[in-house]
Amino acid sequence: MSIFQEGLSPNPVNHIALTPLSFIERTASVYPHYPAVIHGGIRRDWQQTYQRCRRLASALHGRGVNAGDTVAVMLPNIPAMLEAHFGVPMIGAVLNTLNVRLDAEAIAFMLNHGEARALITDREFHDVVREALTLIKRPILVIDVDDPEYGEGEAVSELDYESFLAEGDPDFDWHWPSDEWQAISLNYTSGTTGNPKGVVYHHRGAYLNALGNQATWGMGQHPVYLWTLPMFHCNGWCYPWTITAMAGVHVFLRRVDPQKILNLIHEHQVTHLCGAPIVLNALVNMPDSAKAAIDHPVKAMVAGAAPPAKIIGAVESMGIAVTHVYGLTEVYGPVTVCAWHDEWNALPLEERASLKSRQGVRYLTLEGVMVADSETLQPVARDGETIGEIFMRGNTVMKGYLKNPEATAEAFEGGWFHTGDLAVWHPNGYVEIRDRLKDIIISGGENISTIEVEDTLYKHPSVLEAAVVSRPDEKWGETPCAFITLKSGHQADDATIMQYCREHLAGFKVPKTVVFTELPKTSTGKIQKYVLRDWAKAL
Amino acid sequence: MSIFQEGLSPNPVNHIALTPLSFIERTASVYPHYPAVIHGGIRRDWQQTYQRCRRLASALHGRGVNAGDTVAVMLPNIPAMLEAHFGVPMIGAVLNTLNVRLDAEAIAFMLNHGEARALITDREFHDVVREALTLIKRPILVIDVDDPEYGEGEAVSELDYESFLAEGDPDFDWHWPSDEWQAISLNYTSGTTGNPKGVVYHHRGAYLNALGNQATWGMGQHPVYLWTLPMFHCNGWCYPWTITAMAGVHVFLRRVDPQKILNLIHEHQVTHLCGAPIVLNALVNMPDSAKAAIDHPVKAMVAGAAPPAKIIGAVESMGIAVTHVYGLTEVYGPVTVCAWHDEWNALPLEERASLKSRQGVRYLTLEGVMVADSETLQPVARDGETIGEIFMRGNTVMKGYLKNPEATAEAFEGGWFHTGDLAVWHPNGYVEIRDRLKDIIISGGENISTIEVEDTLYKHPSVLEAAVVSRPDEKWGETPCAFITLKSGHQADDATIMQYCREHLAGFKVPKTVVFTELPKTSTGKIQKYVLRDWAKAL
Repeated sequence: MSIFQEGLSPNPVNHIALTPLSFIERTASVYPHYPAVIHGGIRRDWQQTYQRCRRLASALHGRGVNAGDTVAVMLPNIPAMLEAHFGVPMIGAVLNTLNVRLDAEAIAFMLNHGEARALITDREFHDVVREALTLIKRPILVIDVDDPEYGEGEAVSELDYESFLAEGDPDFDWHWPSDEWQAISLNYTSGTTGNPKGVVYHHRGAYLNALGNQATWGMGQHPVYLWTLPMFHCNGWCYPWTITAMAGVHVFLRRVDPQKILNLIHEHQVTHLCGAPIVLNALVNMPDSAKAAIDHPVKAMVAGAAPPAKIIGAVESMGIAVTHVYGLTEVYGPVTVCAWHDEWNALPLEERASLKSRQGVRYLTLEGVMVADSETLQPVARDGETIGEIFMRGNTVMKGYLKNPEATAEAFEGGWFHTGDLAVWHPNGYVEIRDRLKDIIISGGENISTIEVEDTLYKHPSVLEAAVVSRPDEKWGETPCAFITLKSGHQADDATIMQYCREHLAGFKVPKTVVFTELPKTSTGKIQKYVLRDWAKAL
Repeated sequence: MSIFQEGLSPNPVNHIALTPLSFIERTASVYPHYPAVIHGGIRRDWQQTYQRCRRLASALHGRGVNAGDTVAVMLPNIPAMLEAHFGVPMIGAVLNTLNVRLDAEAIAFMLNHGEARALITDREFHDVVREALTLIKRPILVIDVDDPEYGEGEAVSELDYESFLAEGDPDFDWHWPSDEWQAISLNYTSGTTGNPKGVVYHHRGAYLNALGNQATWGMGQHPVYLWTLPMFHCNGWCYPWTITAMAGVHVFLRRVDPQKILNLIHEHQVTHLCGAPIVLNALVNMPDSAKAAIDHPVKAMVAGAAPPAKIIGAVESMGIAVTHVYGLTEVYGPVTVCAWHDEWNALPLEERASLKSRQGVRYLTLEGVMVADSETLQPVARDGETIGEIFMRGNTVMKGYLKNPEATAEAFEGGWFHTGDLAVWHPNGYVEIRDRLKDIIISGGENISTIEVEDTLYKHPSVLEAAVVSRPDEKWGETPCAFITLKSGHQADDATIMQYCREHLAGFKVPKTVVFTELPKTSTGKIQKYVLRDWAKAL
């Protein structure tokens, strides 16, 4: 034993569980009367918000919910959702945020698989929730949120959220987790095949990614954060904890509506927001008069798909500085960032946007990222051409999949987390996604990156949205099939589109099929490629 | 076992030692050609700096220095000191930064007590070091730094630092620490009585406090940091790691010189610096023409003593925004901050400065602070009047004192770290130091805060510096004794000073003795009160 170990073991003075619960205690203590919550006409400060979180913890505890129990929530972006991010773990319970766009069967599966003891639900989803509760065939504590900003729908139970909070003690003496490895939340992946997998987060990772977010953005005190990103998605990329740590303001938004987003940005002088490129695209396509509402600097963190070069350019010309990040449910949301180089500002917009569409480099709080061969885990050449799979390791990688040791072992095989995303590694170490492992098109033995084809399609002046998937083909094995939504008032046919692609892409990458349609999307704005693949097969 | 534990243990994919070594790997990879080091005419980028750190690690390894070994450094603020903060822990060794103002006996004590295997030393200290090496009576690897910015002095050994680096491999494959609890550094407290105590830091705490610094300052990417704070003091408050994490620039400064500081701030557009109030005081007392060099926003973090209200005001009028923090060697430097409230900006300067002189609230990365009774550990009333001792707990509290289980147990008694500092707790939760436990004056049964008396003295127009200590007194037990340095060209006598105090303080707080003199100071600019106490006794 070295002299630096002897008698120097961790003890309760110098080794305490890392937890984002620490953040709200501090912020409520230091800035009790600073604004915390803005939601429609509701205004609450940090003291009130902290008290509501403690009431929630106390009330759950009073109803028999204990450490290690699961509390599910079926909530849009409203204050109760923020409160659940603190109130539930305050009693050592685990927060299971359900995707509000799912159907009753999927919700029932999650409630049963996650063994939820309680469910907090918004009236908007009463149909689905009522059906799900029938399907789970066991009693569960259900608490209804009657959000004044919705004002419709029906209650599912007799227990109203505000009455429930009234049962709780605003000074409830919550307990610091004894172990930072303790679970804090459960997030089901959307799972396009088979049952969804339950991704388990722990306090340590939530604390670190929350700090990683603010370091990445160089976020000062008191950000004003607009909730354009669903909070049920990777716990809102840990921003419920980040914004609270920085004593900021949470500005809520039940549903993405570009006009409302512009209004809120203007009214509350919003400084930060996050979302999928689709959210930015919606803003870009608003009339100039509406876009003029942004008269101060706004920062947007974008992930979920590589934002097409064109959208980045258009958004930045609106005065929104875009930071492109990348992550997955399994890693608490964003964990890589396209870390910007000031000298790139001198490049033409097209080149800047192209650089910005890279997924970039690891967060300060993720310990490793590499692009490597999916089988051998040998890193690929950093040549910007060789395609490999993105692998990660670090303290913001999930504990694993709930009750699924096989999937967990598979995900962690070889000592790295397998993302399933295919990318190239540029000479400067920046990762750039080429495709999902299952999205790549192999046509006549050639790999086609659907993202590259989509990027080209987005540059066509009439294209509003585009997605490319593989279509089975007797001769080529697969061929690229493009689904396109045109801008309103624009016209184009498949021959025009193909000709445009031929001018900008290698011949084998040009879509052999072009379909004009609305694109199916997930609740987080991601285009549902598996639906499109089915469509392509059926053509 | 809960469902959230089963099969979900930490593994090498999702649980990796937190370490600040992670920062330099990332910064050198993402910003290899961004400036890292400015020192006189020396300019190095992050790739070069990282390679030099790896060379250092490799060369130490080649000379038989192993994990758990101690490497001492006797260095001013020069690039080699930064390199040691990474190169030494890269091989699992422990960095012992020696206070360059100490004498040979103290240095010898530390080299022996810390069991140093190697010493990296600057020529400026060749006399002391040579004598210390004689005293330790055992062979030790000595490496001499011949800093071109010094250009004098003599070598102590034949081994030159640059030649030593040349022995090392710039691509040395350093190993991530296997355990974040592993020691990273050893800092001896100045110990006014008895032998100095060796404070042991670990990788986890260094990582967290480095991030805590950045969050507290809302520090964006690429800060330009001027090294006015000695890097041997609490590892430069963890800023060697913070600035590296943020891909900033380290601007070095061998010796505090107000004109040089102003020149460097101007020339390199310095954004951040740290130091004791004495550093700011030196800037304030420069002629206006010199002060005009600061033509851009500069942020200063100040600690080491409560900055007198007057200094805060004067510095801010120079365009330097002051953040007041507080900490001790035992907690990695600053761990509380006088977190500012925007509404305080509307207050008169005097009130603002008075608020800013509070030590404040815990960092995001410290888990707990309280003011409590020294014996019972019962928190005192938050009334801004009741004096208690400051206690801390959290992940940035030291592992303990090296080879000193008694002192460690005493420091951690009752589950909190005992700071030995006396403070009041304001109703808003902000801590304000009244005195060191051993500095408080008890006169006729009344407690006198020497800081309060000093604050009054500093307001006198002729006072440049002031320090108050207790003087034994037959009648009163103790009485306040003031040591004062007057501004050049000013005159005052003891009667004037006492009269001034009588107008601003309760009668029993007025110094009964006033001595005009130069004040003895530590190398970090702290006034040496134990020397003054001896002087007062001898009066």
